[in-house]
Amino acid sequence: MLRIGIIGVGGMGRGHFTYLTAGEVPGATLSAIADTSSAAREWAKSRNGNIQIFEDAESMLDSGAIDAVMIATPHYFHPVYAIAALKRGLHALVEKPAGVYAKQVREMNEVAATSGKVLGIMFNQRTRHIHQKVRQLVASGEVGEIRRTQYIITDWFRSQAYYDSGGWRATWAGEGGGVLVNQSPHNLDLFQWICGMPSRVRAFCGFGRFHRIEVEDSVTAYVEYPNGATGIFITTTGEAPGSNSLEIIGDRGRLRMEGNTITFWRSRESVREFSDTSTEGFKQPEIWRCEIPVPGGGDGAEHRAITRNWVKSITEGTPLIAEGAEGIHGVQLANAMLLSAWTDDWADLPTDEEKFYSLLQEKIANSSHEKSTGGKALDFAGTF
Amino acid sequence: MLRIGIIGVGGMGRGHFTYLTAGEVPGATLSAIADTSSAAREWAKSRNGNIQIFEDAESMLDSGAIDAVMIATPHYFHPVYAIAALKRGLHALVEKPAGVYAKQVREMNEVAATSGKVLGIMFNQRTRHIHQKVRQLVASGEVGEIRRTQYIITDWFRSQAYYDSGGWRATWAGEGGGVLVNQSPHNLDLFQWICGMPSRVRAFCGFGRFHRIEVEDSVTAYVEYPNGATGIFITTTGEAPGSNSLEIIGDRGRLRMEGNTITFWRSRESVREFSDTSTEGFKQPEIWRCEIPVPGGGDGAEHRAITRNWVKSITEGTPLIAEGAEGIHGVQLANAMLLSAWTDDWADLPTDEEKFYSLLQEKIANSSHEKSTGGKALDFAGTF
Repeated sequence: MLRIGIIGVGGMGRGHFTYLTAGEVPGATLSAIADTSSAAREWAKSRNGNIQIFEDAESMLDSGAIDAVMIATPHYFHPVYAIAALKRGLHALVEKPAGVYAKQVREMNEVAATSGKVLGIMFNQRTRHIHQKVRQLVASGEVGEIRRTQYIITDWFRSQAYYDSGGWRATWAGEGGGVLVNQSPHNLDLFQWICGMPSRVRAFCGFGRFHRIEVEDSVTAYVEYPNGATGIFITTTGEAPGSNSLEIIGDRGRLRMEGNTITFWRSRESVREFSDTSTEGFKQPEIWRCEIPVPGGGDGAEHRAITRNWVKSITEGTPLIAEGAEGIHGVQLANAMLLSAWTDDWADLPTDEEKFYSLLQEKIANSSHEKSTGGKALDFAGTF
Repeated sequence: MLRIGIIGVGGMGRGHFTYLTAGEVPGATLSAIADTSSAAREWAKSRNGNIQIFEDAESMLDSGAIDAVMIATPHYFHPVYAIAALKRGLHALVEKPAGVYAKQVREMNEVAATSGKVLGIMFNQRTRHIHQKVRQLVASGEVGEIRRTQYIITDWFRSQAYYDSGGWRATWAGEGGGVLVNQSPHNLDLFQWICGMPSRVRAFCGFGRFHRIEVEDSVTAYVEYPNGATGIFITTTGEAPGSNSLEIIGDRGRLRMEGNTITFWRSRESVREFSDTSTEGFKQPEIWRCEIPVPGGGDGAEHRAITRNWVKSITEGTPLIAEGAEGIHGVQLANAMLLSAWTDDWADLPTDEEKFYSLLQEKIANSSHEKSTGGKALDFAGTF
């Protein structure tokens, strides 16, 4: 039985706590938690009297009470504790994002590479069947070589009360960013997981545009890919109602994912070849409007699906759905978008990690942000 | 009876010729045409034996045979002939775009302003009921203050054969641009007509990306408005099948126009006020999904609707649906997008007209473009 510990049971960690305690991850048991907050520790104790409770993460990691750890702390600490765990011979599963800045994530990946332990990341959205289907359609060549991508995710509405609920929220020091670091990491991961990594980014961010915060709450990013394809990525916490759609235009047509539907306008032949050889100026190739079946399920149990897969990877060697090392891609994208906006210039990928890190430190040092923090805990049920 | 002449009956001019000859514009008659091409003149002569035929525009303008002129020449000549006509005391209706560069369009507008004659522009898309409806929804405040715009028009697919059909096509010297000058002027006009003019643009253009041409055939433009709103405008002739949708996100919800439908996700209250005052972090305001009725008609007869309106404006003083002077806005937008791409930098609006003009001259001077020109005439029926 794999003995799991959780660092941080203030937010997402409570979800992990609950399904582990309910025995919903075969082959694993919840053995301990660590949290610096006494309220969080009380919460855990009242719900499961059999686990060990620690006031700090290091004590739990050193205790010998666990074989593997799930890290559900504020973002900055994800790679810090992953490194600490891996160095102690423990397996680790980090919440998203993999970190705030690529430099620290790279360090984590380097430690993981030589640790012999399993590092996973909570990209639970990868377990959704619709995402797997879209990825498979692209990877199998159905869409043809990608020409343009368009991912618009504006359904992350958050009120001012959300940002006021914790003093660390939406600050450079506390979170290291806004919508790119907190709400959109899944989207950034899916974007690169499905469409590949861009080669450069030109992004435009609104800092505190919709809320009294210092970090970005709206982003429009233009991206270019190594093959010359272009794309946009738009996200915000300021719009209501938002939308969520991904379009991929390839040499064989246009694919649109929205809600739980995939529509593919399939070109019967290569658009490029048709364009080159057609003798008619205005006619387009024959197009079929195809409704692509999406296998049912995959919703609702996404987090435990990732945890189960991570446990099976540790105990049976099953390949990971979300390798921890892959977390760096989304962080690179987020860093590049902020870097581009800060410098009002292009940001190449892979991101200039040192430059991003030093500019982030400047933002932290120059922060003049103050806000009324009620410190009210929010209900995270239903968040991702 | 207003006596109308047409300059250019090689392309769009043939449509105007046909409905004027058919008597479909009350109060007006087609009296003359001018075209430098003998084939075009033969075409006109064979279809209407009663009109005067001229080999050059100036002769027709000087002839006394017409009171008003429709200009359907290549783009560069639109303002040139409009100025020539207005200075001779003739009314003018120019095809879109108003010109290739804002500097020449401004000159046209200055002449028009003091001419006492009626200058119209063939923005026939303004007569479509769905466009008028969307504009009215924005102008009346239903959508609230605009936060973000998103106009994606990629259904302008053109094959290489289209570009090869005329030596002037898609060259800096012959057209002065690509999709922004030829296919998208209606979209640029609707964009500003409905959403207002941006204050600056950062655009990314692919020059000859999908075709063997020297001008832009794909554009992604990021725009910012005076009130801080943001937007994107994407267009290309290289995708099949393309899409055509306009989204406007305001303080009172999200409006989407696609095909002949308008969907409005209406927020029951101001999103900004809700965000500021809600005590819940994740909850969004109450949203109503509204299907907005679109009055029937307005399609198919758009060009003659503009021509009829222009004639009524001349004869009865009816306000113009599309003032010629407003044509400069779309030209400004197109110029700013090219300028931004050429300089790899922001372009402010109003555009730096002199800078754009001098860079365009450089492009013309440095053009090394050669193409196999079959010189085959294309069928323009069904184009806009």
